[in-house]
Amino acid sequence: MSTELPGTRPGGRTERNRVAVLTATLDVLAEQGYPGLTVDAVADRSGVHKTTLYRRWGSAEGLVAAALLFGIEHGWEVPDTGSLEGDLSAMNRELADYFTDPAKSAMPMASVAAAFQSPKAADALREYYRDRHRKGAAMTERAIARGEVPADTDPVEVMRQAAAPVFYRLFVSREPVDAAVADRAARVAVIAARAGAFRTG
Amino acid sequence: MSTELPGTRPGGRTERNRVAVLTATLDVLAEQGYPGLTVDAVADRSGVHKTTLYRRWGSAEGLVAAALLFGIEHGWEVPDTGSLEGDLSAMNRELADYFTDPAKSAMPMASVAAAFQSPKAADALREYYRDRHRKGAAMTERAIARGEVPADTDPVEVMRQAAAPVFYRLFVSREPVDAAVADRAARVAVIAARAGAFRTG
Repeated sequence: MSTELPGTRPGGRTERNRVAVLTATLDVLAEQGYPGLTVDAVADRSGVHKTTLYRRWGSAEGLVAAALLFGIEHGWEVPDTGSLEGDLSAMNRELADYFTDPAKSAMPMASVAAAFQSPKAADALREYYRDRHRKGAAMTERAIARGEVPADTDPVEVMRQAAAPVFYRLFVSREPVDAAVADRAARVAVIAARAGAFRTG
Repeated sequence: MSTELPGTRPGGRTERNRVAVLTATLDVLAEQGYPGLTVDAVADRSGVHKTTLYRRWGSAEGLVAAALLFGIEHGWEVPDTGSLEGDLSAMNRELADYFTDPAKSAMPMASVAAAFQSPKAADALREYYRDRHRKGAAMTERAIARGEVPADTDPVEVMRQAAAPVFYRLFVSREPVDAAVADRAARVAVIAARAGAFRTG
């Protein structure tokens, strides 16, 4: 998979620096969490001079934003279990797993946190979820083809609705999330979709 | 309504300082947003020495946590429109209004943001929503009494489910929120509640 940016040559110094800096950002986040992410820490870790980091990424939030978009390049395997409820449950269990495992949650947590501090990070988060919504629409499109939900069901609204209760507990009410929470939220989205709550017509 | 703390006398210096500091925290947040909230700024604004602030509240996140819990003392008027969908729509429209109006959103936004940076702020947010859930349960309890939803419907799960899609757009996908979004999320929660998705039995 290409990680090439416009105007850079793969294997060139600019591209090597970019990969080193974004990898270092992910490493620092995983080890020290978002409060420990500073431009100095990433400069030390990557071996790229901090002047370069400030010039290209501006701030710690700018680094988080770039690392998040770097993640889009690595894709997301959309669940395909044979039913809409199965697909949404799988998506939600994956979310719950990522955000509650300290080894995996640093980067996604930092992305959401940084968006409160910096419009650039908020734009990156918006772009990241736009990409996820685009990819995840396949779950509802297949359900429409199988006749599970009305033909004019909005696929993105189904995803938002299914995932939202997981995020509510993680970021708002700060309550525990487990497989039962993930599955119930998926079931609710399917009940509402069947009842026509997400029809665009 | 009493804003007395254990061990303080209303009208005493400790209590006057507390009110001055928490009011100053809210003012600084409203004017400069969460990134501008520092202990120094609150010390300047309140006239309370920053040594006192550090000793009692620890950090900017500690101030946000205390200001959030200060808000609980001021209550929340739970909607009572005569129907569950009406009540949840009113709650969601109020949420949408608070979080999208720059004059009102600084404090709630800061509360959610600070919880990513500090366990103390996360605990305060959890306590705040526990209180809201407790108060808001009345919406579903009245709906049960009216026969709108099954008698063993979990009132807190109905609230979480109704509010979650509003917060998903605000904090995760960073998409716009309006009255139509607020109303649809309320409708979905009611459809699922009627279908028995939140039964505890």
